[in-house]
Amino acid sequence: MTPEPATLCLGCWQNLHVPIALRGPFSIPFRVFGVKPSRMNPNTCTICEMAFSRIMKARAVTIDATIMFADLRGYTTLTQNIGQAGLTSLLDAFYDDCAAAIWRHDGLLNKTIGDAVLAIFNFPVKQGDHAAQALLAARAIQQRFAERRDALLETIGAGDVELGIGIGIDSGDTNFGEFGQSHRDLTAVGTVVNRAARAQATAKSGEILVTSAVRDRSSGMVSGEGRDFSLKGFEQPVRLFAA
Amino acid sequence: MTPEPATLCLGCWQNLHVPIALRGPFSIPFRVFGVKPSRMNPNTCTICEMAFSRIMKARAVTIDATIMFADLRGYTTLTQNIGQAGLTSLLDAFYDDCAAAIWRHDGLLNKTIGDAVLAIFNFPVKQGDHAAQALLAARAIQQRFAERRDALLETIGAGDVELGIGIGIDSGDTNFGEFGQSHRDLTAVGTVVNRAARAQATAKSGEILVTSAVRDRSSGMVSGEGRDFSLKGFEQPVRLFAA
Repeated sequence: MTPEPATLCLGCWQNLHVPIALRGPFSIPFRVFGVKPSRMNPNTCTICEMAFSRIMKARAVTIDATIMFADLRGYTTLTQNIGQAGLTSLLDAFYDDCAAAIWRHDGLLNKTIGDAVLAIFNFPVKQGDHAAQALLAARAIQQRFAERRDALLETIGAGDVELGIGIGIDSGDTNFGEFGQSHRDLTAVGTVVNRAARAQATAKSGEILVTSAVRDRSSGMVSGEGRDFSLKGFEQPVRLFAA
Repeated sequence: MTPEPATLCLGCWQNLHVPIALRGPFSIPFRVFGVKPSRMNPNTCTICEMAFSRIMKARAVTIDATIMFADLRGYTTLTQNIGQAGLTSLLDAFYDDCAAAIWRHDGLLNKTIGDAVLAIFNFPVKQGDHAAQALLAARAIQQRFAERRDALLETIGAGDVELGIGIGIDSGDTNFGEFGQSHRDLTAVGTVVNRAARAQATAKSGEILVTSAVRDRSSGMVSGEGRDFSLKGFEQPVRLFAA
C-alpha cells in the first residue's frame, strides 16, 4: 500500500533545485554530514527541517498551509483498562496509519502528543491543492481505522469499548518556524492551528470536521450547509462542515 | 540565573557509568559520531534519548516518573489579535522560561505543542524526589511569568488581556519509550500522563493543580484538603490540590 520512498529529497528539489540523495549509494556522502531522511516526512531531508534558520535566515515565516489534527476518542478511558503492551500496540497502529496517510499525501507529520497527531500540508513539499490532500489523508486515516478497529480491540484485549478517531482541518496563513531560543522546535502556530485543534475537539468519533476555508479549497469534495459551533477562545461562531 | 551546562552527560554517567563529554575539547570525538547535547535536556545526550531502542533492547518500559503539563491561558484569543512577531515573542518567552525551570530541576522538556509544554521528571536523570522537583519547576515557571507578564504584554502589543499559565502534575508508573514504527517518537503515555493533562486543563490561570500522589511525595510542600473534580475520561472523581 505504501509507495516506495523517494530517492531524492522532494523538498530540496522543489525549493532549492538541489538534488539531495536520501537513499542508495549516492546518499552515503550526505549521511556523513548528518543529512538523512526527516522523521517527519521520509521523502524530505533534515536540511528541509532546518531550512528556516539556515537558509532563509528567518526564525519564523508566514506560509499558506493546511493543518490537520487527529485524535483517538476513548483513549483516556481505555488507557486505564489495558496493559502497557496493549497501549503500545494501539499507539503504534494509530501513529503508523496516520504517518502512512499523511506521507502518501506529501504532508509533514509534525508531532504526536499522547493520542493526538498534528500534520502540516504544503511544507516543505509544495502542493497547489494542499487542503484537498489533507482531506484525502484524513479520509484514509478514518477508513483504515474502521477496517482494523475490531481486530485491534481484540489484539489489545480491550473488549467492546468506544474507540474511534476525531479529525479537524483548517487552512490558511500559518506561522511556521522554530520557537523558543533554548528548546528549538519546528512547528506551526497561530489561529489556523488553533481552529483546526478546536474543530478536532468538536468532531465526534469517526467524524472529520473542516472549516469553510477547507471546503472552498477542496473543489467539491465537501458538500452541505455546515453548522455553526461556539469554539473555546473564538468570539464568533465558527462554521464547520462534516467531510 | 541559569546554572552552567554540564560537561559530562548526567544520564549516561548515572545509568551506565560512562563519561560522555558534552562540551569542551573532549566532546569533539563524540560529535563526530553524532552524539551531542539532547534538545530535551542539554545536560544529557542523544544516547540517552535512544537508550531504549539501542541499549535496553525494549521499545517501551514502565518507569516511575512525574509528569507536568503547562499551558498558556488566553492564548487562542490572543493569537487572533497580535501579529506574527508578537506571537513569536510570546512563545519564545514561554518556552524559554519553561525550559530553564525544567532543566534546572533535571527534568526533560519532552514536547511543546502550540501553547502547551510536557515535561517528564526522573528520566534520564534519576531523582529520588522527582515529584518535589517537578513542583519546584512549576512554581518557578509561575513566578517568572508573574514577574514578566506586564512587560511581555507590552512587548507583544496585546493590551490588557487575560494571559496566564495553568499547570497540572501527576506522579506514578508511566509508559515511556518510542511509539509508532514509522514515525519514532520518544515520549511518555498512559494514565498518569492523561491525569496530568486533565489537571492542567482544570487549573485556572496562575494555578498549579497536583494529584494526591504528588502531594504525598513532595514532603509537606502541598497542604489543604483538595477538591474532587470530574475529569473527562475518568469514571471516578479525581482529587486535586492547589499547590
